[in-house]
Amino acid sequence: MANEKKFVEQITAMDQDFAQWYTDIVKKADLIDYSSVKGCMIIRPYGYAIWENIQKILDTRFKETGVENVYMPMFIPESLLTKEKDHVEGFAPEVAWVTMGGNERLTERLCVRPTSETLFCEHYANIIKSYRDLPKVYNQWCSVVRWEKTTRPFLRSREFLWQEGHTMHRTAEEAEERTVQMLNLYADFFENDLSMPVIRGQKTDKEKFAGAEATYTVEALMHDGKALQGGTSHNFGCGFAKAFGIQYLDSDNTLKPCYQTSWGVSTRIIGGIIMTHGDDSGLVLPPSVAPIQVVIIPIQQQKEGVLDAANKVAQTLKDAGIRVKVDDGEQSPGWKFSEYEMKGVPLRIEIGPRDLAEGQCVTVRRDNREKTFVKLDNIAQAAKEQLELLRRALYEKALKNREDRTYTAENLDELVKIAGEKSGYIRAMWCGDLECELKLKEVADVSSRCMPFGAEPVGDKCVCCGKPAKKLVYWGKAY
Amino acid sequence: MANEKKFVEQITAMDQDFAQWYTDIVKKADLIDYSSVKGCMIIRPYGYAIWENIQKILDTRFKETGVENVYMPMFIPESLLTKEKDHVEGFAPEVAWVTMGGNERLTERLCVRPTSETLFCEHYANIIKSYRDLPKVYNQWCSVVRWEKTTRPFLRSREFLWQEGHTMHRTAEEAEERTVQMLNLYADFFENDLSMPVIRGQKTDKEKFAGAEATYTVEALMHDGKALQGGTSHNFGCGFAKAFGIQYLDSDNTLKPCYQTSWGVSTRIIGGIIMTHGDDSGLVLPPSVAPIQVVIIPIQQQKEGVLDAANKVAQTLKDAGIRVKVDDGEQSPGWKFSEYEMKGVPLRIEIGPRDLAEGQCVTVRRDNREKTFVKLDNIAQAAKEQLELLRRALYEKALKNREDRTYTAENLDELVKIAGEKSGYIRAMWCGDLECELKLKEVADVSSRCMPFGAEPVGDKCVCCGKPAKKLVYWGKAY
Repeated sequence: MANEKKFVEQITAMDQDFAQWYTDIVKKADLIDYSSVKGCMIIRPYGYAIWENIQKILDTRFKETGVENVYMPMFIPESLLTKEKDHVEGFAPEVAWVTMGGNERLTERLCVRPTSETLFCEHYANIIKSYRDLPKVYNQWCSVVRWEKTTRPFLRSREFLWQEGHTMHRTAEEAEERTVQMLNLYADFFENDLSMPVIRGQKTDKEKFAGAEATYTVEALMHDGKALQGGTSHNFGCGFAKAFGIQYLDSDNTLKPCYQTSWGVSTRIIGGIIMTHGDDSGLVLPPSVAPIQVVIIPIQQQKEGVLDAANKVAQTLKDAGIRVKVDDGEQSPGWKFSEYEMKGVPLRIEIGPRDLAEGQCVTVRRDNREKTFVKLDNIAQAAKEQLELLRRALYEKALKNREDRTYTAENLDELVKIAGEKSGYIRAMWCGDLECELKLKEVADVSSRCMPFGAEPVGDKCVCCGKPAKKLVYWGKAY
Repeated sequence: MANEKKFVEQITAMDQDFAQWYTDIVKKADLIDYSSVKGCMIIRPYGYAIWENIQKILDTRFKETGVENVYMPMFIPESLLTKEKDHVEGFAPEVAWVTMGGNERLTERLCVRPTSETLFCEHYANIIKSYRDLPKVYNQWCSVVRWEKTTRPFLRSREFLWQEGHTMHRTAEEAEERTVQMLNLYADFFENDLSMPVIRGQKTDKEKFAGAEATYTVEALMHDGKALQGGTSHNFGCGFAKAFGIQYLDSDNTLKPCYQTSWGVSTRIIGGIIMTHGDDSGLVLPPSVAPIQVVIIPIQQQKEGVLDAANKVAQTLKDAGIRVKVDDGEQSPGWKFSEYEMKGVPLRIEIGPRDLAEGQCVTVRRDNREKTFVKLDNIAQAAKEQLELLRRALYEKALKNREDRTYTAENLDELVKIAGEKSGYIRAMWCGDLECELKLKEVADVSSRCMPFGAEPVGDKCVCCGKPAKKLVYWGKAY
C-alpha cells in the first residue's frame, strides 16, 4: 500500500487549503492542463468526457422541449455589439478584439463572442415575419471568450465551453414560461443527475444579465460554503427586439415586437461537481456524467481465471448499459485503488481468486468506501443499485452541507458577525435598494446570490437600513 | 399545383448557372443565412442537423479506433505558431489576429486557430515522457478561422466547423498506419454513408499540408466536373516533434522523438453533398445524414382517418429507428411536395382516403421520383428498402458522373484541349518536378488533385516535359 499513500499525499487536504486542493484535483485527475495562452485551459480526455456526458443529457432534454441547434459566427462586429446599450456596457470591457485579418488591418474591429444575443437578434430579425414563424427556440454549443483578469480552471477562464439558448416568442407570457421552463430543466439536471441541490430564484437588478429584464438562477453551495451560480435563464422582454427591429405580423394584421429569452450553462459545472462532491482522496463523480462508472480491479491477476472473470463481469455490465473499465495494468491493486479514487470513479469492483472460489466479488463505493459482497450472477443489478445509492447519498450529503451552512440574520450586526465567522448562505430581508446591496458588499463582503422563489420571509425590515422589506435574499460569497 | 411551380421556379437550373444553383439551394433549403460578419455564415437548424448527423457517425467510428476527444484553446500565441517554419509560412498570411483584450493592448498578439498542430504539440511535449505514454490519439470538434478573400457557404468561409485529429506514436510505421487508417475511415464514410465515390491518393509536395511529410486525400467529383477535397490525413514524421521537443524514453533507455499524424474533415462535406447529389428541384440527401429521412404528406387530410393513419405510419417508422415527420400544415400537398424535395428528404410517403381504403400508401423516392404502392402493414420494411435503394442509386449515379468525366491525356496538347473543352479529371503522367506542375496550372488552369494509390500508369513520359515519369496524377479544377 506504499504506492497508494504516496499518491494521495500529493493532494493538499481540503480543510487545509481549499483552493490548492481544487487546483491539485483538476491536475491530478487529468481533467486539464495549462497552455501557454494565459487564462485558457486545455480540457484533457477525462475532463472532456465529463463535458460530453453533460452535453448528451442536456441536449436530449432540450430537444424534447422543441429546441433546435444552430451555429452562429464567433465574431461580432463592434457596431452590432453596441446596438443594445446595457448589453454593450456589460460586456465591452471584457472582450477580445480581432483587429487584423492576415496582413491587413480590419476597417471595423470584431470581438470574439462573449455571448451571442446580438448575432441571434440580427438573424431573427431576418427570418421572423409572421406569427406563424413563432416561437423560435434555438440553441448553440460553442466556446466564448471573456477577458478575465484572474482565472481558475473551469470556474473562470478566458475561454470556456457552454450552450446558449436564444428564443423568440409571440407574447410576454410565453417568454416568461420558457424562461421558467429552462430554469426548472437546469434545476432538475443539477439535483437529479449531478446530485447538487440548488436554490432557484431571481437575481437582483445589480446581478442580472446585461440587457435582461429578469434573470433567474440556480445557485449551488460548494463544500467550503461559497456559492456557485450553476445556470441562468433570462427574460429579455422586448428590449433587444425593439433595438434590432424583430417584429412579426400578428393575426390581427398589426406589427408587434417579439419577446425574448436566453439561458445557458457552461464547463463551470465541472468545477461545481468537484467542489460539491470531492474529498481528500480526489474527485467524486455522479454516475450520470462519470466517464467510467465502474472500474474493475483484478486482485492477483496472474492467477488462473481472475482476468477472465474480470472481463466477463465487464461485459455483463457493459451489456447492462454501464460505462466500465477493467484495469489489468502492471501496477499494484493499491496503486489502482488510489488512481481511480482520484479520478472519482463512483464504483470499484475487486475480484480475486478467493472471491472467485465463492462465486462473488466486492463492490466499493467511492463516496463512503462501503464494501459489499455480491454474487457474480447478480452483478449488473447490484452495480446499478450501488450507483443509485451513491447518487442519492451524494445529494443528501451536499444538502446537509448546505443546511449546516445556511444562517439567518435579522440586523446588520448579525449579518456582519456571521459573514466574518462563517462561510455559507445568509438569509436576510432586503428593501430593494441598490445602496443597501452595495453596503453589504462593503461591510460584510457578501453579494446577493438570489431571491428564492416562494420563500417565507424571515422578518419585515431590511437587514441593512431597517426600512420595510418584502424580499428575502440569500447573501454569500461566490465563485 | 400552382404553388409548387412557383416554388421550384425560384431556383436557377444547375446546367444554366451551377454556382447560382448552389447558392439558391443553401438559402432555399434553409441550410444557412448570411450575417453581417463578412465571410462567416449562420448554420441554420436544418443545416446544423446534417452536421450533427455527420458528427455522430464519425465520432462513433473514431472512438472505435481508440480516439479520445479533447478541447484546446482557440488562441495561439504568435511565438507558438511560428515554431515550425513550413507551418507558419503556410498559415500566417490567412489568420485573424487578436491584439486587444478589453481595453488593453496585448503584449503578444494571438491568432485565432487556423488549425491546432502547434497547441497539440505543446501539450504532448508536456505529457509524453515514456514509451508507456504512447500512442496518444486525440481529436477535437471545434471551429477554425482562415481569413479567405473569396468565400462561399460551406465550401470556403472565414470560420468553419471541423474535427482535427492529432496523434503521437512510437515509430514511423505506426504513424503511417494511423495516417492510412483514418484516410480509409473517411473514404468508407464518403462512399457508404454519403454515397460519394472518392479517389484515395497522395498529394504532391506543392499541395500537401504546411509542415507535413506526406498528405493523403480523398477526392470527390462534383456534378459539374470540379473536384472537392473531402478529407485529408497527414503524416508529419518527426518534424514538429523535433521543433517542439516531443520525445519519449524508450524501453532501451534512450530518448527518441515521437512520430505524428493529423487528419480532418469539415462542414465543407455539406457543400460536397449538395454538389454531388442535388438536382433542379433542390437538395438530395443521403439517408444517413438526412435530418428527416421520411416525410409523410396526408392527402385530403380533412377526411376521416387520414391524419390518424399518417400518424400511425409515423410511429411505426419511428419505432423502426427512422427519422420521420408528418406535415399536417395548411398548405396544399403540392406545395409540400416541393418543399421537401427542396430540402432533399430521401423518401416521401403519400397517404389519402383512396389509399386507406385499400390498406396501402405510396412511397416516392427523392432521387428518381419512383412511386411504389406499399401495404401499410409492411411500411417499415418497405421504407428501409427504398432508403437503401436510394443510397445505392445515389452512389451509382455519382460514380457514373465521375466515369463520364474522367479523361486521359498523353501529351500537353491533349491535356490543354481536354481542360479547355471538358470539366472533370484528367489522368496524366508526371515527372515529379514542381515546374511541370506549375506549368499545367498556367497553360491549362488545372491543379494536381492526387496521385491515386495503386493506379495503373497511362504511359511512361511526363505529360508536360516528356521526361520519364512514373507517377500518375489526377488533374482538375477544384473547389
